[in-house]
Amino acid sequence: MSLDEVRLRPSALPDIVREKLAAVADVRGDRATRVARSGGKSYKDLIRRRTGDAEDAPDAVVLPDSHESVRSVLEICADLGVAVVPYGGGTSVVGGVEPIRAGFEALISLDLSRMDRMTDVDAESLLATFEPGLRTPRAESLLAEHGLTLGHFPQSFEQASMGGYVATRSAGQASTGYGRIDELVQAIKVATPAGDLVLGRPPASAAGPDLRQLMVGSEGVFGIITGMTLRVHRRPERRRYEAFIFHDFDEGIRAFRRLAQEKATADVCRLSDEDETRASLTMSGTSPIAATYLRLRGYGKGCLAIMGWEGKPGDVARRRRATVAVLKQEGALGLGAKPGAAWERNRYSGPYLRDDLLDHGVLVDTLETAAPWSRIRTVHTTVADALRVALRDPGGSPGPFVMCHVSHLYETGGSLYYTFMAKAERGREVDQWEAAKVAASDAIVAAGATITHHHAVGSEHAAWMQAEVGDLGLDVLRAVKTRLDPAGILNPGKLVLP
Amino acid sequence: MSLDEVRLRPSALPDIVREKLAAVADVRGDRATRVARSGGKSYKDLIRRRTGDAEDAPDAVVLPDSHESVRSVLEICADLGVAVVPYGGGTSVVGGVEPIRAGFEALISLDLSRMDRMTDVDAESLLATFEPGLRTPRAESLLAEHGLTLGHFPQSFEQASMGGYVATRSAGQASTGYGRIDELVQAIKVATPAGDLVLGRPPASAAGPDLRQLMVGSEGVFGIITGMTLRVHRRPERRRYEAFIFHDFDEGIRAFRRLAQEKATADVCRLSDEDETRASLTMSGTSPIAATYLRLRGYGKGCLAIMGWEGKPGDVARRRRATVAVLKQEGALGLGAKPGAAWERNRYSGPYLRDDLLDHGVLVDTLETAAPWSRIRTVHTTVADALRVALRDPGGSPGPFVMCHVSHLYETGGSLYYTFMAKAERGREVDQWEAAKVAASDAIVAAGATITHHHAVGSEHAAWMQAEVGDLGLDVLRAVKTRLDPAGILNPGKLVLP
Repeated sequence: MSLDEVRLRPSALPDIVREKLAAVADVRGDRATRVARSGGKSYKDLIRRRTGDAEDAPDAVVLPDSHESVRSVLEICADLGVAVVPYGGGTSVVGGVEPIRAGFEALISLDLSRMDRMTDVDAESLLATFEPGLRTPRAESLLAEHGLTLGHFPQSFEQASMGGYVATRSAGQASTGYGRIDELVQAIKVATPAGDLVLGRPPASAAGPDLRQLMVGSEGVFGIITGMTLRVHRRPERRRYEAFIFHDFDEGIRAFRRLAQEKATADVCRLSDEDETRASLTMSGTSPIAATYLRLRGYGKGCLAIMGWEGKPGDVARRRRATVAVLKQEGALGLGAKPGAAWERNRYSGPYLRDDLLDHGVLVDTLETAAPWSRIRTVHTTVADALRVALRDPGGSPGPFVMCHVSHLYETGGSLYYTFMAKAERGREVDQWEAAKVAASDAIVAAGATITHHHAVGSEHAAWMQAEVGDLGLDVLRAVKTRLDPAGILNPGKLVLP
Repeated sequence: MSLDEVRLRPSALPDIVREKLAAVADVRGDRATRVARSGGKSYKDLIRRRTGDAEDAPDAVVLPDSHESVRSVLEICADLGVAVVPYGGGTSVVGGVEPIRAGFEALISLDLSRMDRMTDVDAESLLATFEPGLRTPRAESLLAEHGLTLGHFPQSFEQASMGGYVATRSAGQASTGYGRIDELVQAIKVATPAGDLVLGRPPASAAGPDLRQLMVGSEGVFGIITGMTLRVHRRPERRRYEAFIFHDFDEGIRAFRRLAQEKATADVCRLSDEDETRASLTMSGTSPIAATYLRLRGYGKGCLAIMGWEGKPGDVARRRRATVAVLKQEGALGLGAKPGAAWERNRYSGPYLRDDLLDHGVLVDTLETAAPWSRIRTVHTTVADALRVALRDPGGSPGPFVMCHVSHLYETGGSLYYTFMAKAERGREVDQWEAAKVAASDAIVAAGATITHHHAVGSEHAAWMQAEVGDLGLDVLRAVKTRLDPAGILNPGKLVLP
């Protein structure tokens, strides 16, 4: 669809506001820029984009270049009642950058891409300080000059920003080894309409509640993260990825639990269930001979695991031995480095594949949760069943297809990451998706699991926050919001509904 | 001093309040019980106790036996304007259980010792749920029945309670291995005057800000922790403790930094500076022959390290090899198991030793902070110097004596734990101590370090919270407090001053 065909309302931003903002930051109002900031990467966003719907696009895109510039923008918007949607890499899959006006007449996208520096590095203490708009590939190349890495590799790696990671409590594919972003945040600077918050004294403190952890995952509703000091790691000299196959999912879960509890994890640990394994082997073109071999060895309905170790060569060898010993004791068969390398090559390709499938009339989305080891099998089945029932085609066409993997290990449990596909109902795409999403989310909270392990809340999970933290928990979040953003301009409709 | 000699005001609790409270919990008003709950274990508390000053003791001690009982007590006290000081093990060294009335006419001690059960255990997921009043030795024996341990061993181990650990963001001697309490809290239940908070979905979540971390370290000012699910560990089959000596503190710091950053730490890692080493070797009665040997090997002014590994025999051996390789590469000399065993035997004796020293007219106290590796040497010296200057005797008597150790390692830095001693000025004990405390605390915040690494804030560090989180950070804490405890009855004068 050409840009001219996209539906877009004229900007509602009064000239007087635009002039004030232009005095403190770059302001863009052209059609292409507004349309490009009209959403993120959720299924709803993608469908809207494909149907040429950018009606609700921001009235302007504002690009600050410093903490002070952000502060000035917030002051102007708070004074004049303009909603502000922070925008980092734009990769939210839960409606985190959706331009929801919530009663405000005008709304701007606060695009942080100009704030893209690494402002400090302390290689001795493994600390680095970033501005929020810095995207991961450039952050990694800046860190590489000092022999360092952040080690944060979500599927959104190519686009996502440092600020976005912290604001959404992100986890990457190697977070079992390198840590979730909330474990990496050592200090944080936040610009709010009520003033600045500067929090965190590395390496650790017992000085009261950890206010950093109130800002991590705050998704732009309390303030704009303008700087953050993250724990970084020495760049690995060696990386080794391998595949293994288990007889079944139960066996794999047992092995993964032992890895986590015996401190024998790899840095990347990923276990596919039977359905995802079947899809992986089919897509990777496993030869009939290999398939027969696996069947004869008793792994015909097995579950694939990808393991990756990174570090100094000696450490990689030592840690790999510990991991492999547990895997073999529990029944796994080693498949060598080839499938591991294939996974590594394609680790960021999921989002592109999703676009291709949409082109072919397929509903495809992902969602995730986590559960303690004692309940992970029950949660796994319950949520998958809810998705299958919700997506069953009354017309009788085959599918839906629901598959899952475990990809973040903790001593106490693991994450569950679902991919689900069905024939899209033309013209009813969003309703069809919404039914599946509601069914899965209800099943998750009914099972006592979390509504999100690393995708965050955004607009799409906000309705389940009451189940997550209770009415009083929501009220605590609202009390903080009221103190920091009394006019309520920051990212309306996300995280906590009024 | 006999109980009769202790100065104590008559109870100010109106009979009508006492009756209401007695309907929902056990209420004690006898002299012995009130006096016993009049303070914790800070230097000021000890001096007050020695001078027979229990003037400000609680007007009554209330002992609830359930979450519901706590809720009822809070409702009554909020309605009738009675201050509530939660009391777990009573081991606060920062005035955390000081009965500060802050304008309230009456004050009760909320003694949680009746709530001392382990209510759930999930050995498969390494999770255990506790009531707040359970003390560590009994918690460990309950866990041992399931082959588990919490692995939390602060000096207050014998007295301190589960709720106290969580409320004060505690760390123990083996926290480098087993994790700080804030890393172990998976779920938490809090009774507040405004209702209940039930937070946390193990193992991890990205559902917004982590409200658990707002309650961990909240020191009773937001609510009473009535239940907590903690990550526990398999009970170690083998424990191995050894001592090493470095040529100097710099060398030891370099080695400890490498251990942390190369994932080669022991579970207990403790490095004494030159002064603490001298004191340790003298007190442990090191023979002249051994001293000469050390001097001849170039370790005459060395620094002692205690290392302890716990776990399965094979893991202990493997991990010990990795630790020792780094220690030796950096220049350490192994001293074998004897000094390690001596340390282990005396690991909880510090508080008793302090009492003995007070008997002999010695001012003795401890304080702690933490710093990134790149600044730990500077912070170490600055704070020690501030203490030495503040405690110098104008009369010219020898001392003061200030010593320090590093005992919690992180990839990004380490903790610094100071013990300081001087001749007590009779009758001026508290003023003398206060001057030293202020000097050290000012030096800590001027160096950009945290006011407390694991002792918490209480009343004694509250004045430095502004330096820690800023004015707006304090306001955020006040906004949360106002929502949860609008009458302001909970632990007045602690953590956040009005």
